[in-house]
Order: sequence, then C-alpha cells, then structure tokens
Amino acid sequence: MAEATLGEIAAHLGGELIGDPTLRITRISPLESATPSSISFLSNVKYQSRLASSQAGCVIVGPAMREAAVARGAALVTPDPYLGFARLTQWWAAKTRPIVAAGVHPSALVEPGALVAASASVGPFVVIESGATIGEEAVLGAHCFVGHGASVGRATRFAPRVTFSHGCHIGDRGVLHSGVVIGADGFGFAASPGGAVKIEQLGGVRIGHDVEIGANTCIDRGALDDTVIEDGVKLDNLIQIGHNVRIGAHTAVQGCAGVAGSTTIGSRCIIGGASIMLGHLTIADGVIITPGSAVTRSIRQPGTYSGIFPIDDNASWEKNAATLRNLHTLRDRVRALEKKTSGP
Amino acid sequence: MAEATLGEIAAHLGGELIGDPTLRITRISPLESATPSSISFLSNVKYQSRLASSQAGCVIVGPAMREAAVARGAALVTPDPYLGFARLTQWWAAKTRPIVAAGVHPSALVEPGALVAASASVGPFVVIESGATIGEEAVLGAHCFVGHGASVGRATRFAPRVTFSHGCHIGDRGVLHSGVVIGADGFGFAASPGGAVKIEQLGGVRIGHDVEIGANTCIDRGALDDTVIEDGVKLDNLIQIGHNVRIGAHTAVQGCAGVAGSTTIGSRCIIGGASIMLGHLTIADGVIITPGSAVTRSIRQPGTYSGIFPIDDNASWEKNAATLRNLHTLRDRVRALEKKTSGP
Amino acid sequence: MAEATLGEIAAHLGGELIGDPTLRITRISPLESATPSSISFLSNVKYQSRLASSQAGCVIVGPAMREAAVARGAALVTPDPYLGFARLTQWWAAKTRPIVAAGVHPSALVEPGALVAASASVGPFVVIESGATIGEEAVLGAHCFVGHGASVGRATRFAPRVTFSHGCHIGDRGVLHSGVVIGADGFGFAASPGGAVKIEQLGGVRIGHDVEIGANTCIDRGALDDTVIEDGVKLDNLIQIGHNVRIGAHTAVQGCAGVAGSTTIGSRCIIGGASIMLGHLTIADGVIITPGSAVTRSIRQPGTYSGIFPIDDNASWEKNAATLRNLHTLRDRVRALEKKTSGP
Repeated sequence: MAEATLGEIAAHLGGELIGDPTLRITRISPLESATPSSISFLSNVKYQSRLASSQAGCVIVGPAMREAAVARGAALVTPDPYLGFARLTQWWAAKTRPIVAAGVHPSALVEPGALVAASASVGPFVVIESGATIGEEAVLGAHCFVGHGASVGRATRFAPRVTFSHGCHIGDRGVLHSGVVIGADGFGFAASPGGAVKIEQLGGVRIGHDVEIGANTCIDRGALDDTVIEDGVKLDNLIQIGHNVRIGAHTAVQGCAGVAGSTTIGSRCIIGGASIMLGHLTIADGVIITPGSAVTRSIRQPGTYSGIFPIDDNASWEKNAATLRNLHTLRDRVRALEKKTSGP
Repeated sequence: MAEATLGEIAAHLGGELIGDPTLRITRISPLESATPSSISFLSNVKYQSRLASSQAGCVIVGPAMREAAVARGAALVTPDPYLGFARLTQWWAAKTRPIVAAGVHPSALVEPGALVAASASVGPFVVIESGATIGEEAVLGAHCFVGHGASVGRATRFAPRVTFSHGCHIGDRGVLHSGVVIGADGFGFAASPGGAVKIEQLGGVRIGHDVEIGANTCIDRGALDDTVIEDGVKLDNLIQIGHNVRIGAHTAVQGCAGVAGSTTIGSRCIIGGASIMLGHLTIADGVIITPGSAVTRSIRQPGTYSGIFPIDDNASWEKNAATLRNLHTLRDRVRALEKKTSGP
Repeated sequence: MAEATLGEIAAHLGGELIGDPTLRITRISPLESATPSSISFLSNVKYQSRLASSQAGCVIVGPAMREAAVARGAALVTPDPYLGFARLTQWWAAKTRPIVAAGVHPSALVEPGALVAASASVGPFVVIESGATIGEEAVLGAHCFVGHGASVGRATRFAPRVTFSHGCHIGDRGVLHSGVVIGADGFGFAASPGGAVKIEQLGGVRIGHDVEIGANTCIDRGALDDTVIEDGVKLDNLIQIGHNVRIGAHTAVQGCAGVAGSTTIGSRCIIGGASIMLGHLTIADGVIITPGSAVTRSIRQPGTYSGIFPIDDNASWEKNAATLRNLHTLRDRVRALEKKTSGP
C-alpha cells in the first residue's frame, strides 16, 4: 500500500493546504467511503451534503467550498478540484504500480526487420512482424500482436492481448486496453450472381497522439484510404468503428456505440453509450448524442440530440406502443375533427 | 460418443422411471430432433403437442404430463423436468468431455511469487504475474492472463484467452468464457484546457462465487473503490459493465447489454439483451428490463419495465415516426379541439 | 508499393479499355482522393458529379457512364463496375500482401492426434488440440486456438487471436477476424431454490463455406443440437449469435447486432447494425431490418422492417417523449372528441 503525507500531496498538486502537512494518507477515496487516512474530493456542488458527514482526512475542494471544507477538517483548495483529483490519481498510480522493465521478454517473437526501441517493453508471447516499429518507452503487454509495417508511438501502452494489424499506426502516449482489435477488415462486399464478392480492404488505420481505446473495441481498416482517429480521442469499451470513419480531435465515445462506414464525426463531440450512427454521415464539431440514440442523418449544428423511447412500466408501455403503431391514423382523426369543428 | 442406460440416468436424476431401464441412450435431444436412442424433456406445457410426435426413446416430464408421456413410450417423471434436464446435461458433460489434467503446461509463464494450487490446471502460453493466486481445481485455458495480485477461486474455470487484470478477484466455481476482459480501466477523464486528463483507475473488480461471464464481456475496474459482482450473477456475451457498478446476487444480464458507471443493480433482476443503463442509477431487487430498453432513471419498485419502439413494415413506421416528430403539436391540437368543443 | 499498368488491369478484369494501356497505376482510390496514378471507380450514378473533378488516371465505369468518363480521361468500361472494383481489390491484395508460408511455426503447440494439412500455415503460439483438423491452405494467425475435434476447411483464414472451440466446424474459404469466439457456451440455466443451475451446452457450431465473421463477434454453441451458419453468410464486428440460432445462406448481419437463442433467420436477409432479435423467432427469406430496430416477433413476409425512435434536437425530443408517455390517454381524448362531435 502506498503512503504519502498531506504535505507531499499539496506540493505535487499545488493549491492551498489548510491542515496538518504531516498527516499520513494511504488511500484516495470517494467522500462516502473515506476514512481518516483517505484524501477525497468534492467537484460538484450538488454533492455538497456529503462533505460534512465524510470521514476523509482531507478533502480537495474549489474556492467556493473552502469554508464548508475547513469547517470539518483538513482541506486542499485548488481552482479545479476534479482536475486536481485526476492528477493525484496519476501520481498515486506512478507510486504504486509495478515498474515495467524495458526490454523484450525472451518468449516474445520479434521478426527480423522489426524495430523495437531500447526503452520499450515487450511482454511474454508477443508477436511483432517484420517492418513494424515500436517507439521509445512503449509497452506491449502479454499476447499482443503488431503486424507487418505497423508503428506504435513513444510511450504508448498496450494492455495484454491487443491486436494491431499490418499497416496501422498510432502516435504517442496512447493507451489500448485488452481485446482491442485495430485494423480488421471493413465490411465490404459486391453482389454477384455467385454470392457476395469480398472487397479486399487495402487502407489502414491512422490514430493520433493521446488516444485511449477501451477493451474489446474494434476499429476497421479503410477500404482504400485510411480510417482516421485524431489526437485526444477517447473510446470506451466494446465500440465498433467502421471503415473510413474519421473521428475528430478530442471527441469521446461511450461504451457499446457503433459508427458505420465512412461517417465523419467532428471534434470535441460526446457520443453517448450504445448510440449508433449510420454510414456516410457528417457530424459537426461539438455535437452531443444522448446514449441509446440512432443517428440516421447528418447533423450540421452543434447541440444535444436525442432519440430514445422513454422507459415505463410494461403495462403503460404496451398501451402507448400499441397506440404508436397507429399514430398516423390518430393524426388523421385529429385532422378530421379539426375540419368538422371549423365549420361555419 | 457417450452412452448410458435409462436405468443409470434415472438412478442419477431420481424420479419415477416408466420404461425399460436397459434402453441405451446416446444423446440428449430436443423433442423435435430426438431419435429412439435420445432422451428428451418437456418442461413447458405449451409445447405439449410436440410430445406425441417425438421419436425420443424417453422423455423427462413433470407429474402433470405423466399420462401423455407414458402413452407414447418411456418416461422419467420428476417434479421439475427442466431442472432435471439441466442436471442431466451436467452429468453428460462430465462423462463426455476430455479430462483436464492438473499442472502447469511447460509453455506457461508463472512469475516468481505467484501461487498456483497443485490441483489447478494452467494451459499453454498462459501468463500469471507475481502475487497472483490460483485456487485448487481452477482451470486456466490457453492464452489466459492473470495480473499482479489477482486471485482466482477454487474450481473456477477460464476458457482460453481470458484477461484477468491486476488486483481483481473472483470466488469459487466461476466460469469465464473466451475473450472476457476483467479489470480494464474505467472510462474517466477530467477536462482541462490541454485536453482530457486521465483519471487513473485505482480500484479493482471483486466477483463472488458461482458467477458466469460470457464471451467478450468486459467489466471495468473501479476508479477508487471496487466494481462488485455478487454471488450467482450470470452475464451473457458482449456485455459492458462500467466502473464502480454493483450487480446484486443472482441477477442475470442478457447479451449486448451495457451498464454505465456507478449504477447499482439489485439482486434477482433480469436485464434484457441490448438494454442499456445510464450511470449513477439504482435499480431495485427483482426488476425485469425488456430487451432493447434504455434505463434512464432509477427504478425503485420491482416489476417489468419496457421502452422499445415497436417494429413495423418500413412504410408504416415512416408514417408513424414522422407523426411522432410532431407529437407535442398533435397534443396541442387536441387540447385546442377540447377547448373549442367544451364551450357553451 | 504495388504497381501495374492499365493494360494489365484491363486484361485481368476484362471490359473495354479506353486510354493508354502503358499508364502505370500505383493505387486504387476513391474518386475524391485519386491522383493521376490512381485507378478509381464509379458504381452509383448518384455520385456522377464527382467524376468530372476526379484526378484519377483511370475510372472503372458502367456502359451508361462511358461518355462522361471518356470526356475526362482513361476509362475501363465493364457491365458491373462495383464488382469489377471488388475483383481489382482482390488482385491487388494478392500482389501486395506478404505471402504466408506453409508450415507450423516452431512455437505453436499441435497436440498429438491433431491433423494439420501440409499446405496449411499455423502461426506462432497457436494451440491446436487433439482431434482437430486443419485443411489444406488454411491459415491460422498468431495466438489462435482450435479445440478438441474442431475442423477448419480448405483455404479458410483465421486472423490472429481467434478462438474456435471444441466440436465446432467451418467449411472452405472462410475468413474469421481477430477476437472472434466460436463455441462459447450458450446462456442457459434452470432455476432452482439454490440458485441457477447451469445447462451444459452440448451442441456445437456448424459454419458453411464462404463465411466471413468480423472482429470480436461471438457465436455460441448449441445447447443440444448445433448452432448453424449457412454458406455465404457475412457477419460484421461485435455481433452476438445465441445458441441454436440458424442463419440462412448469403444473409448479411451488420455490426453490433444481437440474435437471441433459437431464432431462425432466412437466406439473403440484411440485418441492420445494432438491431436485436428476441429468441425463438422465425424470419423469412429476403427480410431487411433497419439498423437499430428490435425484432420482437416473427416476420413471415420479405420486405423492409423498421422500429427506431427518430432522433431530434434534445428539446424537441423531450417534448415528444413526454407526450408519448401519455399517448394512450391522448387517443382516449380523441375518441371522446369524436363521440362529442358526432352527435345530432
């Protein structure tokens, strides 16, 4: 278990520390489960009521919460407590996680003609094919696969069991979680009398810097040109990105979403979980899609867009759904009534 | 192929056997495809009509179906024929499947400081990191990965290619299918002027006893505290469980469902396939969610809840969907009509 | 980089070449990003406007577009330009991709009693269990797993990291992408006072010829009989196919779809992305399901079927959704109005 004093934490994060700098902190905790040796945080004024009752040894708060925090014990006051919390988790993780040693595990298979930087770490049973390049400080977990001519940037980390196929590229400081598949074939066939004829997918996948990709997420290679994921994009788990999609910088996509081929998503969008986008659409910068919505047309203006059937108890839903099946006739009946009552 | 006599089966399952105990059974079959050397079962009176025409050598039935079953041939009468069938499949599987030998395959990599019980079986190319513990009679299929400090309980079986990350724990008699990823990072970032800052995920995943997890399903580690899956939970394939979710005992989740972070689901719920739950919700015990529904608010009462757009032929759907887009104006028009016709 | 002359391409594809047969082509490109050394194609008259402005060295077109294509430069005229393009990608891929050498990689584990054809290629760290059969010219990428008694047909290719479990079978010329899991247990339990009792899944998965299965897609083994995927079926990524499903020949299923157990889908259907099908349904041949639809009943007639809540800006959606929650009372109000105004 890690340990740090409040003083060390304050020195790392900056901000004003009110309280005993020698207090030993052994955990970062949410307000509700915090103990006197925990440091916690309050980022949303909505949860202010949890502050007074928390057992936390210290709470990171914004200036507006300074007094309320000090009233209950030690406090670290920073302009953006959630950002402070994020930085604290990074510092904590660096202190507590096992150090990954540089070098290629003896069981790994690095084909001749592949280039692995000296400071990179290649885990057991990894396969790196010829022509691939692994950057400085990159980490490939156990059972990863990097195909012919693919490249992995500096300090990019692959969890165990990532498939990164031939001719795909990722920049620096990326994080790919287990089960990710980059560069499987896009879904493309031409009809013929003898059945579907496969369109070989000749493009690749180009991923920028600071991209994170969640477990079991798939990004298909382009048919001719590349599928493109720009800098700072964050993809959650179990997402499907079709061929020739482009996702703009700093867009976040939540879990279980699917984006069909050749759709272009702008930058700084938030695509809700389990939402889907048809192919060949264009989505503007700054669009927010509510989870579970089906995007069936291009969206040209920033804003929030939704399309979810509201959940209800089953009996009510059944009655409403039955009426919905005949909604256009209901509209016709209203029209008829309007006509009837508008008479002289 | 396995073989057993009716008498052996009856001795194993209990119940009343009407028919020749020396009859040789070589298969368990559905009523429709059964042959005279099959044993079949009828658990739902709804399918009673299939009984008379079945070629099965013997049929497992409940007391109410005793006469109908005997009228056509041999029968095994038990209070709960579906449960009897389930137990029969277990007996059959134990008879027919290759025995998994205890021991660590020579190609597996067990780091110093990992503890593998003597009766456990560790398959080829498995990686077990230091500090991990593998219980008695546990089975890890080929290409599995168990991270630092993780623990796998007694008689828990991992199919080939399961990722079980550092600091995650599972109890006894669990079954994890291929492609499962336990303990990938939850999806958490803090906004900053320079782009999203990763919140390192410092919690783990704690899984109880008798839990089954389907192929390619993902359970993320908690941000600070653990993600928790209680005893007897059954998860189907391709499910996403976000960080700090808690799933209550004996709840079943069908395939392709997604549960966003910090949601708490009660015990003995049934969460329908491809349904989604937003984050930070609370779902009571005994809730049933219809497949394809989006749960956007907490549910405090047991019962069945639904929210699916009814499927229809495309032309009808288009007309209804077009009207739905202006549903609130239709309501306003009805209001206006009501006002108009309520006058003196 | 590959290179071919227009003459070589025309000789391979057939059709009428108008233009210089010695022109060197180094890429196949979409019309928009084509350069003078690209060959491109126009398959849909809708995109005709892109033709004139394209920089492509040559364009594959149908007879109707002959004049328009010739007006701008070289053209290859074929009856079905999209099919011609598909065949060209295959020819190009064969020219440019590394040749996969026959033979078993020394790091692979082939158990005694497994049969691997001499012309098959088995990659590093592959595991093939006893009783399995790998056909001529089959390719198993790195980290693949083939279980006891499974069989892989002639010229079928597994990308790295495919799990193909015991007792499953696939025909010839199949393509399975990374992360695919064939033959995990179907989701079946019988209730008992002590909790759910697992129904061991004793069936297998039978897959026909010319089947393609996308990344991280799962097909569960049957409970008693087999799950069946007929010839020519194409499955995209992240699809869930439950136990005892049958998918008819030449049906295509788009990404993120889910099909629950025991549903039978006809042949030449198109099942839209992220759509779901409940279990025990029957879907006729030639049915098209719009992406995102929930199929909750059997469909007996070919045609297109839809069920999606239309997406809208959030404010409009909220108003419509709120009205939808009381839709049946709106209908009752219309009825009351009709009664009132129908009087004498």
